[in-house]
Amino acid sequence: MTPARSMSAGGLSTTANDINNWWCHENEENAPAAPVCDRVQQIIGGAMKTKKMLLPLLFVIVSNLAFADEGMWTLDNFPTATVKDKYGVDISDSWLETVKSSVARMDSGCSASFVSANGLVLTNHHCALSCISQNSSADSDLEAEGFLAARPEDEVSCPTDRLSVLVATEEVTAEVTKATAKMADKEAGEMRRRKLKRLVQECEDASGLKCESVSLYQGGQYWLYKYRRYDDVRLVFAPESDIAAFGGDPDNFNFPRWCLDMSILRVYENGKPAATPDHLEWRKEGLETGEAMFVAGRPGRTQRLLTVSDLKFLRNTTIPDWLLRNVELRGRYIQYARTSDEARRTVNAPLQGVENGIKVQRKRLDALHSDALFAQKMAAERQLKAAVAADPRFAAEVGSAWDDIERANARYLEFRDDYYFIEAGAAFYGRLFNYARSLVRAVAERDKPNQDRLKPYTEAALPRTKQLTLADRPVYPELETLQLSFSLDKMREFLGPDSNFVRQVLGTKSPSALAAELVSGTGLADPAVRAELWNADWPTIQASKDPMIRLALAVDKKARALRKRYEDEVEAPSDLAYEKIAKARFAIHGTAEYPDATFTLRISYGAHEGWNEKGTDVRPWTTVSELFPRVTGAEPFRLPASWRDAADTLDGNSKFNFVGTTDIIGGNSGSPAIDKDGKLVGLIFDGNIHSISGSYWFDSELNRTVAVHPEIMIEALQSIYSADHLLEEMGLE
Amino acid sequence: MTPARSMSAGGLSTTANDINNWWCHENEENAPAAPVCDRVQQIIGGAMKTKKMLLPLLFVIVSNLAFADEGMWTLDNFPTATVKDKYGVDISDSWLETVKSSVARMDSGCSASFVSANGLVLTNHHCALSCISQNSSADSDLEAEGFLAARPEDEVSCPTDRLSVLVATEEVTAEVTKATAKMADKEAGEMRRRKLKRLVQECEDASGLKCESVSLYQGGQYWLYKYRRYDDVRLVFAPESDIAAFGGDPDNFNFPRWCLDMSILRVYENGKPAATPDHLEWRKEGLETGEAMFVAGRPGRTQRLLTVSDLKFLRNTTIPDWLLRNVELRGRYIQYARTSDEARRTVNAPLQGVENGIKVQRKRLDALHSDALFAQKMAAERQLKAAVAADPRFAAEVGSAWDDIERANARYLEFRDDYYFIEAGAAFYGRLFNYARSLVRAVAERDKPNQDRLKPYTEAALPRTKQLTLADRPVYPELETLQLSFSLDKMREFLGPDSNFVRQVLGTKSPSALAAELVSGTGLADPAVRAELWNADWPTIQASKDPMIRLALAVDKKARALRKRYEDEVEAPSDLAYEKIAKARFAIHGTAEYPDATFTLRISYGAHEGWNEKGTDVRPWTTVSELFPRVTGAEPFRLPASWRDAADTLDGNSKFNFVGTTDIIGGNSGSPAIDKDGKLVGLIFDGNIHSISGSYWFDSELNRTVAVHPEIMIEALQSIYSADHLLEEMGLE
Repeated sequence: MTPARSMSAGGLSTTANDINNWWCHENEENAPAAPVCDRVQQIIGGAMKTKKMLLPLLFVIVSNLAFADEGMWTLDNFPTATVKDKYGVDISDSWLETVKSSVARMDSGCSASFVSANGLVLTNHHCALSCISQNSSADSDLEAEGFLAARPEDEVSCPTDRLSVLVATEEVTAEVTKATAKMADKEAGEMRRRKLKRLVQECEDASGLKCESVSLYQGGQYWLYKYRRYDDVRLVFAPESDIAAFGGDPDNFNFPRWCLDMSILRVYENGKPAATPDHLEWRKEGLETGEAMFVAGRPGRTQRLLTVSDLKFLRNTTIPDWLLRNVELRGRYIQYARTSDEARRTVNAPLQGVENGIKVQRKRLDALHSDALFAQKMAAERQLKAAVAADPRFAAEVGSAWDDIERANARYLEFRDDYYFIEAGAAFYGRLFNYARSLVRAVAERDKPNQDRLKPYTEAALPRTKQLTLADRPVYPELETLQLSFSLDKMREFLGPDSNFVRQVLGTKSPSALAAELVSGTGLADPAVRAELWNADWPTIQASKDPMIRLALAVDKKARALRKRYEDEVEAPSDLAYEKIAKARFAIHGTAEYPDATFTLRISYGAHEGWNEKGTDVRPWTTVSELFPRVTGAEPFRLPASWRDAADTLDGNSKFNFVGTTDIIGGNSGSPAIDKDGKLVGLIFDGNIHSISGSYWFDSELNRTVAVHPEIMIEALQSIYSADHLLEEMGLE
Repeated sequence: MTPARSMSAGGLSTTANDINNWWCHENEENAPAAPVCDRVQQIIGGAMKTKKMLLPLLFVIVSNLAFADEGMWTLDNFPTATVKDKYGVDISDSWLETVKSSVARMDSGCSASFVSANGLVLTNHHCALSCISQNSSADSDLEAEGFLAARPEDEVSCPTDRLSVLVATEEVTAEVTKATAKMADKEAGEMRRRKLKRLVQECEDASGLKCESVSLYQGGQYWLYKYRRYDDVRLVFAPESDIAAFGGDPDNFNFPRWCLDMSILRVYENGKPAATPDHLEWRKEGLETGEAMFVAGRPGRTQRLLTVSDLKFLRNTTIPDWLLRNVELRGRYIQYARTSDEARRTVNAPLQGVENGIKVQRKRLDALHSDALFAQKMAAERQLKAAVAADPRFAAEVGSAWDDIERANARYLEFRDDYYFIEAGAAFYGRLFNYARSLVRAVAERDKPNQDRLKPYTEAALPRTKQLTLADRPVYPELETLQLSFSLDKMREFLGPDSNFVRQVLGTKSPSALAAELVSGTGLADPAVRAELWNADWPTIQASKDPMIRLALAVDKKARALRKRYEDEVEAPSDLAYEKIAKARFAIHGTAEYPDATFTLRISYGAHEGWNEKGTDVRPWTTVSELFPRVTGAEPFRLPASWRDAADTLDGNSKFNFVGTTDIIGGNSGSPAIDKDGKLVGLIFDGNIHSISGSYWFDSELNRTVAVHPEIMIEALQSIYSADHLLEEMGLE
């Protein structure tokens, strides 16, 4: 299946797992424990709008959507005419170009924008949380206390962050489909992977840029996306987490809301602030109610045109399994946090990640339990099948595609537990095992020809893998032991105490005893040890006595075999089937549709408007004066001292958070809200609770984007944090 | 809908919540945290076998079942002819009579049997776990160390246990239906409750026995069940939990298996061992493979004829909610257990309960995700609807019943969170709040006429409520704080921080701060304080300064209003609809069916036989010699010292656990396995993993009962525990 998890460390961020065909383990900070990387690279695209309506019922549904602000659009296919019709706004090519070069992807799973000519970057606090916590210690807790660099030289490094700015795109569909023509599932799958790796490498060699392959419209199109990349990212400003995430998990995905979920970073080149002439100017007063609003960013993943079989797989298997795993982990984290102040501090970021994921998956599951959703999906599938059957161009070739996917799912269920625990890493949760596997695989893969390597170890992907593996970041042994012990418990629970693999891993030890032994015995917490192993040769790795390396070595053969089986028996036939369906859909419906989200640049349009919640109109903004009555003094409804002190001096009418009708999803965190003139009018950090069903369909009545208003960002920088130098740099007095 | 939880403290036990219309909170020990008491008293009955087969598909399904050992039969309707046909065994009236008076219900949720003339009772270790842990302390841990009373005077009291033996039954259907004739939903519901309370009281007054009303065939029949009751129950023998629950949660619901899940209790009357002339004799060598086997006990609840709407409600709402709540609690318990030895000891019993419940609900959810199950249920419903529509006797009156249930479910969803947290107690988990609510309600209800009271406070039910409220049992403040803090967290999460109720309860405190304050401030841990309040009058209760009493008082009005709304808008229309469906089914299909389980006496039949698991035949028994290679020394695969010492002297060929094809469910824990001559041939303690789907249908190919073999019980008592005096009392040398 496509991953059930596409948000992790905060409202609308996503993770690398959703982006690349990472080896499906957690290399990112703060990601929930259960990697759900079933068919991780399968990108399902296409809107719900179709040109021909065969069924009256469908017509009703679709004609609603025709007026909805639906879609996460690629720049080359932005619906300027629709926007003009509905909002009277002309979106010019130069508007699109400026937006493209002012907006960046945070490769850890967020969006961001440039807000000065000297590399200043605006994103969410929760998008900078890994950097903030990596720079915190018991003595200097930047999460609790906030951070402001008075001068550039005080800005601190974010060791695992990286920003990518899209420079150009190039379609390569013809080359890919030619390479795989007339091949059977398994061979086609293998050839496609190799071909794309080769194209990426050729692109990098030719352009001097950083290239990635992207599959749009579920294999209907293949593209190369070319990026300028910033590896040196530093933290400039972060407010205290009590105000950044005011309301905590209870308020997450809710509105009305009062969160200053912002942070400011800076990108450097050659040790100096990077020149970023293309950047956004602020419009301090924000949008008028009802005014057109745009969101530019990197939505991670939607699954709006999954087949019914895949949706059932999500509903019956992927999401319940993910939830039950992570909800137990949440319980362990919460109880662990109570054992000491240091436990509370170090577990905070992973706890936030897991709680956000739980809220998302719960609401996705609710959406998938809706009879109305399944009725619509089934009707749409029937309709497309009928159109295919009636068209001699496709009937023979495409007709079986839906059954092929169902069969692939049935086959997958036969070995899913093994795959999930052994290769996808659910048995070995924690940073230390990730390091061990990355090191073992990096050394093993580097000797192979580029196109034969696992994707994270190809030349194009290797720098990121190296950064994540070698970055100097704190490791907390108690927390690592908790995580590894938990995941070994789950492994035994699901594979069974009599499984050969479980016996091989545990021997006669209990999961918690083994976890404690591995964590205390390994030297991998030390970046120098990792760097040495990274540069080692295969015999050296094989001879390592480090117990975590030994574990990674011991399970690697079995893990790789499961990946191969998964690729051949599940991914390959599904990809081919989706490619066929996409081809038929293109032919029947044309391309006046948007592809599902792929963590690549998209623009959504809509308006600054509220919604009606069970009979009550929700005003589309909140103000500062409404914040204070909600403060209880107890976490998570507690204000930092700086805000308590400023209570009387802040302007009560300043707008705090606001909503709009734009279509967004996890990965859009940190996106700028932009007005018709290309001005910055807000900072996206969340969606309302109804936005979560946006994974599967867009409910224009209820689905809303939630953003930080420019008024409170500017006022806080000025009155509370005295960041005049930053305001000045951003062109604000 | 009908409760998703009908097992709690171990493989096949059930709890009071499933039995009585308790006020839906946890008064029993070790029950999982989330009360799922939606429509708790709704008893859904009827087998899947129907006489007329209208659809070919159904005929295939049903003709399989005709040869299956399906059914939990009442004694007045036992299928002697089928048993004779299939197994050549004559079940006589005297066999049934002896079984009836030799088998007891443990009111905490298990079954048991008499095994001597002097009140000796055989049941599972996990059924005596509450008694064992109530009698344990840090210095004397009976769970870890086991227990054997050398003489009757050493037997220790089980303060919350009670045994009930069925003496007689009386059908009162005519009186109940006459009383509610021609009434609308709400009035009929109210009248039915009052009428049944009155009948119960009249029965007790007239018979001198203890009476309970039972609804069979989902309102198709109403009965009075008359019991002899034993309030004085004492612990005689318990093995160490390492062997009683060898394999722990990983092995729960699995087979092959090696658990000595037995304990021996004794019932007393007037301070002396009770005379129990009717009891079971042992057949030491157990059953031959393939031989007929019978199980007599109190299966708690099956839901085999729920409407499709109710099954969807379970799948989409009740079970996922229950699981997500309890899985988090499991995580908190596990992490808490690691904080100290005392934490580990005190949390062990609740953790076992919650883990058992999780396994059950997971597998139920899997069953409800089966397309085959829903296809069968939908076909059966269509068939019955068609038969009703075709029959002029029922078409008008019964035709809308299925829609009525669906509407009741939709209405319920509008206030289910409120009901669940506020009245069903999910906001206030822990023994101390239970005490407070029981005390507040007992005093308030006692002044009302009997038939107007909430059921736990009627004259017939009051002694049990009093026993559970006043029994002297340890309260662990840390554990209580954990539980209450957890449930207040969940309340805020689900009702929202801005809910008036949440603000009323929390004020400006965090859930954990409030929980700590309530637990440390209340005096209710002291049985003397509770006894004083139990005997107090209403003004005294109202003036109490105890913070837990004050909380129970503060929320009681809202809680009662929700109960009323639930009874009127959900329970009453559903009950009436099911009653109508049942009436039509009786008329169309007759009574050659068994009712769904109701925690009342039932007998199942079958054979001592294994099954085929994915191509491999599972031998239907295990032996002692196979136990030792499975021992790792680490919990839960660790043996107690007594067993390690005896490793060489035990007979390796002795049979340990075994399986049979009998149809059982939670509540059957502790049931005797009985042979054709009425001899004791085993002790039921679990089902295999496939048995869990038995809630919804009986899969004769895979569903198996798991029992302790008499050989290992006798050998352990003899060689390991030197309990010669017990063996002698049971007629074994």
